[in-house]
Amino acid sequence: MRSVLVTGGNRGVGLGLVRELLKDPSVSIVIATARSVDTANDLKVIDNPKLRIVACDVTDENSIAAAVEKVSEIVKDQGLDLLINNAGIYPPLDADVSKAIAMRQFEVNAVGPLLVAQAFHNFLKRAAEQNGSAQVANITTVGGSLALARDQYYSPPTTYAMSKAALNMLTRKLSLEWKGDNIRVTAFTPGWVRTDMGGPDAMQSVEEATVPLVKLILSLSEEHNDQFYKITGEKIPW
Amino acid sequence: MRSVLVTGGNRGVGLGLVRELLKDPSVSIVIATARSVDTANDLKVIDNPKLRIVACDVTDENSIAAAVEKVSEIVKDQGLDLLINNAGIYPPLDADVSKAIAMRQFEVNAVGPLLVAQAFHNFLKRAAEQNGSAQVANITTVGGSLALARDQYYSPPTTYAMSKAALNMLTRKLSLEWKGDNIRVTAFTPGWVRTDMGGPDAMQSVEEATVPLVKLILSLSEEHNDQFYKITGEKIPW
Repeated sequence: MRSVLVTGGNRGVGLGLVRELLKDPSVSIVIATARSVDTANDLKVIDNPKLRIVACDVTDENSIAAAVEKVSEIVKDQGLDLLINNAGIYPPLDADVSKAIAMRQFEVNAVGPLLVAQAFHNFLKRAAEQNGSAQVANITTVGGSLALARDQYYSPPTTYAMSKAALNMLTRKLSLEWKGDNIRVTAFTPGWVRTDMGGPDAMQSVEEATVPLVKLILSLSEEHNDQFYKITGEKIPW
Repeated sequence: MRSVLVTGGNRGVGLGLVRELLKDPSVSIVIATARSVDTANDLKVIDNPKLRIVACDVTDENSIAAAVEKVSEIVKDQGLDLLINNAGIYPPLDADVSKAIAMRQFEVNAVGPLLVAQAFHNFLKRAAEQNGSAQVANITTVGGSLALARDQYYSPPTTYAMSKAALNMLTRKLSLEWKGDNIRVTAFTPGWVRTDMGGPDAMQSVEEATVPLVKLILSLSEEHNDQFYKITGEKIPW
């Protein structure tokens, strides 16, 4: 694994993924994106020559296009071996569902990953041509599983679950569409993690989630294509 | 079955559903909504005292609120026995996927049904209190099935499939959330139909799809709650 890009890399699970990826000797470049580089302080304090911080708002096509230019300068003709669509948001729990809240869930959690994946498709293709395969990892939730929607132990807000079901569909569709490019697409749930999103009561620390998750993502092979996993490697039904 | 509301009732499958519902002697009121009543000519030519045409843009919260007022005047304290979330759109096939196209799919196909269902929740509750149960029927597509996303015979555009997967999640979540209100929520695919959306090559006429679909919807019982059906009554996995 040479180069990795993580969206929403400046906090929570994304920051944890960046930290673990930087530790792995098989990874040579970690591109962490943040909506604003100015305020990405937790990334800026990391002193590691493998890390590059790039501005990218996944809901803004111009911002994505600018990030593509920056990434192109970083990876040159080597392409991108791994894209981690991590950026995501949770709806406010203290407000009634409104159109604005629902649309914002889809914008960040489903349309963002679609636009980012499309924008970096050629980078992934180039890496796959050189190294045999490339990988997209979509960070989703077990609450986005249609199969488990009625009997799961964790039942997230409806708009969040809807947006993550849409992201799961993107995972399956891209995995089919990009099969000929040798780009694998896999979904992962980090579980419930103590972050700004998960809150203080969550069962796992960021490290407890991201250490095994990075290990799993870096060990992916063809059998993991078009699948949905917990950090333990246990499969989740769609 | 006393009162039914069909969104997007002025053309395609929606218009077919309205026509078939009007023929059924168990149905006493059919409220067909259209974004614009002025241009809903195919509804306006129907001469049937059971039919009421109400303006409703499912993507506009003010329009939905106005429709709620109109429906309140029509059904008075009887509530609404059946809500058919039919309004939906297909993405343009001659354009690259853009943020605007993707967001519009979610807006109409997923957020619209969510907002409409919420807006008419009290009407459904009231009908269920009086008649034992009420029903929501969400018109979706087999292409929105996560389980069949890789092996289905019909593979729709990614943004459409994503938005319908989100609608399917809404179906499962509402069916859980409204269980205590005795409101059932069920998903249906009309199949491929010769409409503006389906195009001239589709295998079924509107009547071939909507005659059995209306029969199925009007025959629903508790066993159909939280399920996904073809017009034949065959179950589709989520």
